[in-house]
Amino acid sequence: MTAGMPPHLSVLRLGHRRDRDKRITSHLGLTARAFGADEVILAGDRDPSALETWDSVTERFGGDFTSRFEESPISFLRGQSKSGEVTIVHLTMYGSLWEEAIPSISLEKPALVVVGGTKVPSEVFHLADHNVSVGNQPHSEVAALAVFLNSWLGPVDNESKFSGARMKVIPSAKGKVVINDDEE
Amino acid sequence: MTAGMPPHLSVLRLGHRRDRDKRITSHLGLTARAFGADEVILAGDRDPSALETWDSVTERFGGDFTSRFEESPISFLRGQSKSGEVTIVHLTMYGSLWEEAIPSISLEKPALVVVGGTKVPSEVFHLADHNVSVGNQPHSEVAALAVFLNSWLGPVDNESKFSGARMKVIPSAKGKVVINDDEE
Repeated sequence: MTAGMPPHLSVLRLGHRRDRDKRITSHLGLTARAFGADEVILAGDRDPSALETWDSVTERFGGDFTSRFEESPISFLRGQSKSGEVTIVHLTMYGSLWEEAIPSISLEKPALVVVGGTKVPSEVFHLADHNVSVGNQPHSEVAALAVFLNSWLGPVDNESKFSGARMKVIPSAKGKVVINDDEE
Repeated sequence: MTAGMPPHLSVLRLGHRRDRDKRITSHLGLTARAFGADEVILAGDRDPSALETWDSVTERFGGDFTSRFEESPISFLRGQSKSGEVTIVHLTMYGSLWEEAIPSISLEKPALVVVGGTKVPSEVFHLADHNVSVGNQPHSEVAALAVFLNSWLGPVDNESKFSGARMKVIPSAKGKVVINDDEE
């Protein structure tokens, strides 16, 4: 656990539609992983291919990121909210501005970041401890999640977060440098 | 022009595939707009629906954001590079880490941020003044663009950047507050 990280961080993707959202949802889960989440939870259409994509990236690029499908996301959220043991952050373009909200979001408890699809039930706004917007312009849940997590948690420590990687990309100003253990 | 913004900021989306990338490209252009770009340039498949989405959001939510299709993006990049009048930033997971690269990126000249699709020709790495990665984990070009622009330029001034809006979302901790001039 890095300083400044909640003890556990999940991202719940509501309202996934298998056909329309395939790549957005895939990017959303990868963004969750890259910016420090421990888990992505898919809700909406059951879509094993999304989970396979995420698990395959984790297998190659390291870390303990997990993924699962949640059949009843609202019941799940109600339970999480009622327990009082989890901080629920709902990302929505209608919420409070992220720079203002972030200092009040607890890092003591496990956190659940909820990312909506097209239509989010109004109950989600009430179950959330924080309704947070990354700007109030229409853009993308992928952009919102990335900027929120990066602003909230800061840079992810690659070595600790993505240990056991078989593939590593080495930063380079002029080309591609990839270490691939499989090819050694 | 806000302090800390280049005089003009374009985002070039390479390699768009109409079927596979429709929503990712749409989100990418909206992210460019929301995080301070003046223009998005689409390359790859000619796809009027992407331009229509972006223009429609600008019409409702304000500002002077424009969009266009570029038939020959590599020729265009060569010309921009040769002119020396534009700073070209190529976002790629193989590039230098963004926190380290950002202080050396000029704000004096117009900027062109290039966002790749699946296969970016290696020439793009050489034409770019800066090859920049937002982390070296696989995630999303939408996430990368958002975090890069937000880190580089800071928060966008909504009032000046999105003037003339017919719709405005007002930040709110507990629900949706939207001002719609059309309904007055």
